[in-house]
Amino acid sequence: MSTADETITLSPNYNQDGLIAAIAQDVGSKEILMLAWMNKEALEKTIETGEAYYWSRSRSELWHKGATSGAVQKVYELRIDCDQDAVLLLVTQEGAGACHTGRKTCFYRRIESGENGAVLSFTETK
Amino acid sequence: MSTADETITLSPNYNQDGLIAAIAQDVGSKEILMLAWMNKEALEKTIETGEAYYWSRSRSELWHKGATSGAVQKVYELRIDCDQDAVLLLVTQEGAGACHTGRKTCFYRRIESGENGAVLSFTETK
Repeated sequence: MSTADETITLSPNYNQDGLIAAIAQDVGSKEILMLAWMNKEALEKTIETGEAYYWSRSRSELWHKGATSGAVQKVYELRIDCDQDAVLLLVTQEGAGACHTGRKTCFYRRIESGENGAVLSFTETK
Repeated sequence: MSTADETITLSPNYNQDGLIAAIAQDVGSKEILMLAWMNKEALEKTIETGEAYYWSRSRSELWHKGATSGAVQKVYELRIDCDQDAVLLLVTQEGAGACHTGRKTCFYRRIESGENGAVLSFTETK
């Protein structure tokens, strides 16, 4: 343990790419919706606006989640972990869902042990 | 969307350090316990043993969570996301909790807007 664990100063530990991991969880169902990344600007915009902003690593740009799709995430609560290298967003998910496939969650496949190693199986959560 | 979104082949997208993000969620309370990292060996050991293994970035070694502290995570279900660069572990947490501070969850602080910018406040979840 260190004093960093008990500080009330926000001091995100961005990685070498200037990013911090961000988990979005549905505040009602508690389902995990997605894992994405934020840079400093995305985190600040999220705090300021109450809607989830991420950093799109594929497009290399600030990403206001749902700005084009309607799948906005309204942030109910924002948390940070002990060593300040991950944040947790408790959100209400608008639109069809968080996933680009149209599903509510990005975690729609289970990893299961098969005879020839691990395989995936689909799980559609309600 | 791509065929990768619908495949049942497990093909984790490890990052440049050979790691994939891993979220541990309590299967009962649905509380997010922690975010950690797995390398290929950690993921394989987790699938094989049914207990959570991670890669300790600070110690640069395979980390059998709880092996010394007793805070073992029994894996009830393992999921992977659409682009296979994050896994979700639904676990039962043994011992005092997931966090090295002795708390159940690592996400014990809220980010809140203050007069002079964002500050943290403690939230002890039951």
